[in-house]
Amino acid sequence: MTTVGILGGGQLARMLALEGAPLGVRFLVMDATAEACAGQFAPMVVGDYTDEAALAEFASRVDVATFDFENVPSESARWLTDRVAVYPNPRALGTAQDRLAEKTLFRELGIPVPPFAAIDTRAELDAAIDAVGTPCILKTRRLGYDGKGQFRIRTAADADAAWQALGAQASKVGLILEGFVAFQRELSVVAVRGRDGEFRTWPLTENWHVDGVLSASLAPAVVEPGLAETASTYARQLAEALDYVGVFALELFCRDGELLANELAPRVHNSGHWTIEGAETSQFQNHLRAVLGLPLGSTRMVGHACMLNWIGAMPEARAVLAEPGGHWHDYGKAPREGRKVGHATLRADSTAELAAALGKVGAALGREAQVAPVIARLQDGESL
Amino acid sequence: MTTVGILGGGQLARMLALEGAPLGVRFLVMDATAEACAGQFAPMVVGDYTDEAALAEFASRVDVATFDFENVPSESARWLTDRVAVYPNPRALGTAQDRLAEKTLFRELGIPVPPFAAIDTRAELDAAIDAVGTPCILKTRRLGYDGKGQFRIRTAADADAAWQALGAQASKVGLILEGFVAFQRELSVVAVRGRDGEFRTWPLTENWHVDGVLSASLAPAVVEPGLAETASTYARQLAEALDYVGVFALELFCRDGELLANELAPRVHNSGHWTIEGAETSQFQNHLRAVLGLPLGSTRMVGHACMLNWIGAMPEARAVLAEPGGHWHDYGKAPREGRKVGHATLRADSTAELAAALGKVGAALGREAQVAPVIARLQDGESL
Repeated sequence: MTTVGILGGGQLARMLALEGAPLGVRFLVMDATAEACAGQFAPMVVGDYTDEAALAEFASRVDVATFDFENVPSESARWLTDRVAVYPNPRALGTAQDRLAEKTLFRELGIPVPPFAAIDTRAELDAAIDAVGTPCILKTRRLGYDGKGQFRIRTAADADAAWQALGAQASKVGLILEGFVAFQRELSVVAVRGRDGEFRTWPLTENWHVDGVLSASLAPAVVEPGLAETASTYARQLAEALDYVGVFALELFCRDGELLANELAPRVHNSGHWTIEGAETSQFQNHLRAVLGLPLGSTRMVGHACMLNWIGAMPEARAVLAEPGGHWHDYGKAPREGRKVGHATLRADSTAELAAALGKVGAALGREAQVAPVIARLQDGESL
Repeated sequence: MTTVGILGGGQLARMLALEGAPLGVRFLVMDATAEACAGQFAPMVVGDYTDEAALAEFASRVDVATFDFENVPSESARWLTDRVAVYPNPRALGTAQDRLAEKTLFRELGIPVPPFAAIDTRAELDAAIDAVGTPCILKTRRLGYDGKGQFRIRTAADADAAWQALGAQASKVGLILEGFVAFQRELSVVAVRGRDGEFRTWPLTENWHVDGVLSASLAPAVVEPGLAETASTYARQLAEALDYVGVFALELFCRDGELLANELAPRVHNSGHWTIEGAETSQFQNHLRAVLGLPLGSTRMVGHACMLNWIGAMPEARAVLAEPGGHWHDYGKAPREGRKVGHATLRADSTAELAAALGKVGAALGREAQVAPVIARLQDGESL
């Protein structure tokens, strides 16, 4: 029997195991903490991604490996690749880990992208602010290990403070300056590519963030059909350029009817959780089909779906479960501020029914603010 | 966190765990064999159902218990009931375990049932054959532990041979004589009742058996609407009479447009596996919602669905996975003759599309005979 290894044991690994089990495979999850929630439904190897002994045990017990976490060090991914099949490939993972490489690839492929510039020195920062324009954001190219990876620059006068905050990172993980985009909407396209190159996207999704964390997703997004087609084309170009295998999400800004690429997430994605109930085949099952070299499932929608993220602590389930199209996902995690602990998906045959269900759930849970922008979008039904 | 205990660790327990995990509960499975396939996704207690030490460990680790197997000895179920909440209740389980009690209940509720008679002595057998008519079947009231629980009687002259075969069981598990029903179709209704009495049924399902084992299920059954209503009413009467909590299936014969109750299965049921993809809420999730005292989910269908059982060994998955509405369920069991090792569900928006998909899958897998009766039913579309 085939065993699929997953690096990272959070809710994405958990849902991969639950949705992938019917394919007849077993799972082995590797995570630095024994309490990782995927461990409730799959055996685990507990160890850090840089722990070679743990990685070796993991590699010896799996037939193919994948990720629930994109910041696995690329050296670990390459080390694994020498021992076992790994999807997506380390180059794709490495590109998505590096804001500069990612945005450079967008630009090379002709995918519109907000202005950006690489920064190595203090002098380059001034030139870049000039070129990119203000406001803009100075960011580390890779994950900031100290959690302080971003500095917002309102005017050129902020350059010193920005360099003070992040200049030391320039020689470690590199820096990038990104122009601020005054977008009207945030969208994402979740896509999957098989080992044989077969490619599919789920319908375009609109996302709402609160304090930088996804709060709600609506699918299909209420946009002109052409926009979904464009997003899908961008996703396909990226997948082919990276010889990508598996599911990924391309996050997009929409400004005045134009799409700008923001970020590539090389894994199943929070904005695709609605696919469990809202699509013929979920992102989780299709990721595993891709990784295992099996035919991809249909990504067609079944009605309209809205996902609501639960952050910090789970609300009471009853209001959602009592809705005819209400589906509950509790990740089995301990509550903690800012932590994604679960989500709900509401599915309905029409946008009017979906808006009504969202209104009821929002009122019952005292989360009117979370559902309001989605209801407004469904009610105005205004295309971009 | 709530832990749900499941007695029995086969595919039903496995699917209960996979479909119930999103509710945020944990599972503990008890099975006599450590290789039970539910153990791939849930922790296990290995022990026989009559092993009091194992049962005690099981009871101490769960908040509520249920079954994937109806022939758990009723003493074990009662022993558990004194220690932990158990759904369905032991009386419901006991009734379903005893063919005579079950059929007597059907009759008391006014649910049509084939002729039957209890048999304690050789003399009663002759009288019963006279009353029930031939052909008929002599059966043990409870599970025949030697696997030889049935004897077919074609004429009254077979009475001696029948008594020879089963007479010794009369004083042990009891005997029942059942009239043979020349039915045209086998149907089942899968139903769920909550702890608060809320009751729902999924659409009526038609089933095809080969050598006594379920081969294919089609939902919704192609019948007059009134028949589904009648089946649903019977199921509700049974559920209320037994104060049933959880999912059960009522198996029915259809003869000349009339429904006759055959058997009550006090658990999630093979003829309800299509609900995973074909209904808004699956039988597995609703069983857990019922057992946990949560609101029941909608049992409404999404399109048309056909389930094909895989017996003995799994076929190659590709043909099913390549169908737009094709879903695969490999239970992770070792192949063995006569064993249920997996199933596939095909879902489509119309009966014509479903028939076409079945034709393709049947041809690709060399299983034309398995799909043929379902295709014929979909194509003639003839109501009963």
